[in-house]
Amino acid sequence: MNIPRSSFPRVVIIGGGFAGIALAKKLRNKSVQVVLLDKHNYHNFQPLMYQVATGGLEPDSIAYPIRKVLQESNDFYFRLADVKEIDTKNNKVIADIGELRYDYLVLATGSKTNFFGNKEMERNCMAMKTIPQSLNIRSLILENFEQALLTNDIEERHSLMNFVLVGGGPTGVELAGALAEMKKAVLPKDYPDLDVRKMEINLIQSGDRILNTMSENASKKAEEFLIKLGVSVWKNVRVMGYDGRIITTNSDLTFDSATVIWTAGVQGALVNGLSAESLIARADRIKVNEFNQVVGYKNIFAIGDIAYMVSEDFPQGHPMMAQPAIQHGRQLAANIINLVAKKPLSPFVYKDKGSMATIGRNKAVVDLPHYKFSGVFAWFVWMFVHLLSLIGFKNKAVVFLNWVYNYIRFDREARLIIRPYKKKHQVNFTTDEI
Amino acid sequence: MNIPRSSFPRVVIIGGGFAGIALAKKLRNKSVQVVLLDKHNYHNFQPLMYQVATGGLEPDSIAYPIRKVLQESNDFYFRLADVKEIDTKNNKVIADIGELRYDYLVLATGSKTNFFGNKEMERNCMAMKTIPQSLNIRSLILENFEQALLTNDIEERHSLMNFVLVGGGPTGVELAGALAEMKKAVLPKDYPDLDVRKMEINLIQSGDRILNTMSENASKKAEEFLIKLGVSVWKNVRVMGYDGRIITTNSDLTFDSATVIWTAGVQGALVNGLSAESLIARADRIKVNEFNQVVGYKNIFAIGDIAYMVSEDFPQGHPMMAQPAIQHGRQLAANIINLVAKKPLSPFVYKDKGSMATIGRNKAVVDLPHYKFSGVFAWFVWMFVHLLSLIGFKNKAVVFLNWVYNYIRFDREARLIIRPYKKKHQVNFTTDEI
Repeated sequence: MNIPRSSFPRVVIIGGGFAGIALAKKLRNKSVQVVLLDKHNYHNFQPLMYQVATGGLEPDSIAYPIRKVLQESNDFYFRLADVKEIDTKNNKVIADIGELRYDYLVLATGSKTNFFGNKEMERNCMAMKTIPQSLNIRSLILENFEQALLTNDIEERHSLMNFVLVGGGPTGVELAGALAEMKKAVLPKDYPDLDVRKMEINLIQSGDRILNTMSENASKKAEEFLIKLGVSVWKNVRVMGYDGRIITTNSDLTFDSATVIWTAGVQGALVNGLSAESLIARADRIKVNEFNQVVGYKNIFAIGDIAYMVSEDFPQGHPMMAQPAIQHGRQLAANIINLVAKKPLSPFVYKDKGSMATIGRNKAVVDLPHYKFSGVFAWFVWMFVHLLSLIGFKNKAVVFLNWVYNYIRFDREARLIIRPYKKKHQVNFTTDEI
Repeated sequence: MNIPRSSFPRVVIIGGGFAGIALAKKLRNKSVQVVLLDKHNYHNFQPLMYQVATGGLEPDSIAYPIRKVLQESNDFYFRLADVKEIDTKNNKVIADIGELRYDYLVLATGSKTNFFGNKEMERNCMAMKTIPQSLNIRSLILENFEQALLTNDIEERHSLMNFVLVGGGPTGVELAGALAEMKKAVLPKDYPDLDVRKMEINLIQSGDRILNTMSENASKKAEEFLIKLGVSVWKNVRVMGYDGRIITTNSDLTFDSATVIWTAGVQGALVNGLSAESLIARADRIKVNEFNQVVGYKNIFAIGDIAYMVSEDFPQGHPMMAQPAIQHGRQLAANIINLVAKKPLSPFVYKDKGSMATIGRNKAVVDLPHYKFSGVFAWFVWMFVHLLSLIGFKNKAVVFLNWVYNYIRFDREARLIIRPYKKKHQVNFTTDEI
């Protein structure tokens, strides 16, 4: 990997998500050389991905070129690379495009969909962790409706119009709400020759409440909102299998559905060479100390979703969300600068800014540390916070414009099948991200 | 194909391009049943595709869902279908999704890239007739730059940074200009560790002037603009072969390039059953009379690029562009209504509204029937006309916002490799549109 030598120590960051970008930005023009590696040349704003999957936003407005984020950084290098292994003995990263020596290594590889070992689910469900996956879902929803028009088989039509979301976390809830709004305002106009009332949206949650990382009140409100929108919420139901058509559960309940979207869990995206059992906590996260140092290493760090940092308040690590990732990244930047300057490190302290989820127009739930609320005001707060968090003025403006338009017109215009999903994947759907 | 019977005669339109959409809109809520078939569920605005290929616009803002264009049309049906054959004896369309009887059939299938039988070129060149193809070009340009960073082989790096456009029509000229602007304002900032000055843009034209369907003055001005932007314009050069690396020509001239974009010609997109030699004119267009009736048929019509209508002013048919397509569509709507009402048909008369091409910021050429001009004013006229022609308020607004942003910031933000091109196509590039 053609990276010039520098008089500064080299920090190699793997991953340009919230954590990696926050770190790289804070290390800009400091006494280190920074090399950022990512499989994609863009950073994506995961919290709005469900809107891409449901035609509310175009993918380009939630993605941002990494090179542009870090333009005008001295001694900074980005490489489009798929990291294969870490050679911790020789301090080397081994990637598809070659090898690279590091002085400091930061894993910011994030997380991937966790199917908890269920290969059948993995094969047949849709996942939504990448932009191509979100576009696949968008294509599939629309292809299903086109196909529903063609069949005279009532059961097949029902299956094509039955959408099942497994997992009642924020992603599942937000997707369910967005699908319900499509059902209400968009699809009946597009498919006048189809009885869209027959479309079903089922949200399946294994626990006894949805949004179980939020307050009880948020869970209750969110469920009310979903039910008002026509979503069937199934609690205490565990999905056991899905053959591409029938979902079986731990009870007598079954669902006949052509489209199952799996949002039930994520796991750390491990890298070979740093996956020894002693390093790994639950959900494939890597154990780090309060300085984000991977246990047993002085010069290897993990930040964001992949990092498992235990504290009194967070006995199971920080939530796998944008906020801890960003805060990890920023804190680690300060610590790396300290390390280079031979100063003592400062421990990480998580500042909980709260969490929120949107269910539909005028319907959101917000848990702030000292104040919890829901409804129209929560919805505006949700929009405001997400708009401000997007990188880049133009993306903010385009998303704002889309939201205003969608709000006024009750519409979602990006219902385009640009790359058909079914034709390519025939009977068995795969979860490949290409 | 589940289309209900109607008391009105059935008009089947194949293709939702400029011609098909213009026709369908004018037939809305008239005494006919309309069935529109297209391979895609969106209409795309081809004149701006080169901006998608060069990261200036996101694909969703030049595409528009066909179902939305024709919402609230009575007795109107859209089907996502790939037409395989026309059975003219039994008045039936045979598609991948089934068969359909027609009373009137309209071919609005448009055109596809014409490689003039050169299979090697077809295999190794990029085409730009569909949105997926434009996105492939966008990915390839960026992947080339990422790869150029990795190699120490000077010739390979040169090849990766050498872009060749074959064909000096509007598409080739507009692409060349857009690439030149990327070279000037965007790529040096993104790739500070690469000598972007070494990027080459070569435009090859077989004839003795570019834009040869426009005025001599427009050709001259466009060439001046391109040269000012650093594009090498090669006239009277005919490309003979391209093995994926070296382009050979009819002279000693060769080019070593990893990216050859073929914009040298289009040909009608024929359908089996209506491709008898007696029906076909040059470039695979179908001969029609002044009422757009396909020769030998009373109830089959062709409009837009695929239609070859000869008149005194147009001895070789109308130009294969948006304007004639839209005008064909509108006129045929009137004629079909006449036909149903047993009234006489009116012959088509083309109203030439002029033509234009843009080369770069503040640089365009415009030929109006009685007035020809170029430069800043032409550029504003070009933008204004294209903005107004886009379907949908939101697309207009998003494109406008992008243009203002790109103009002020000298930027093109959509430089995202969402679906990598090279990895999937390895050594031999294909022109498949998926």
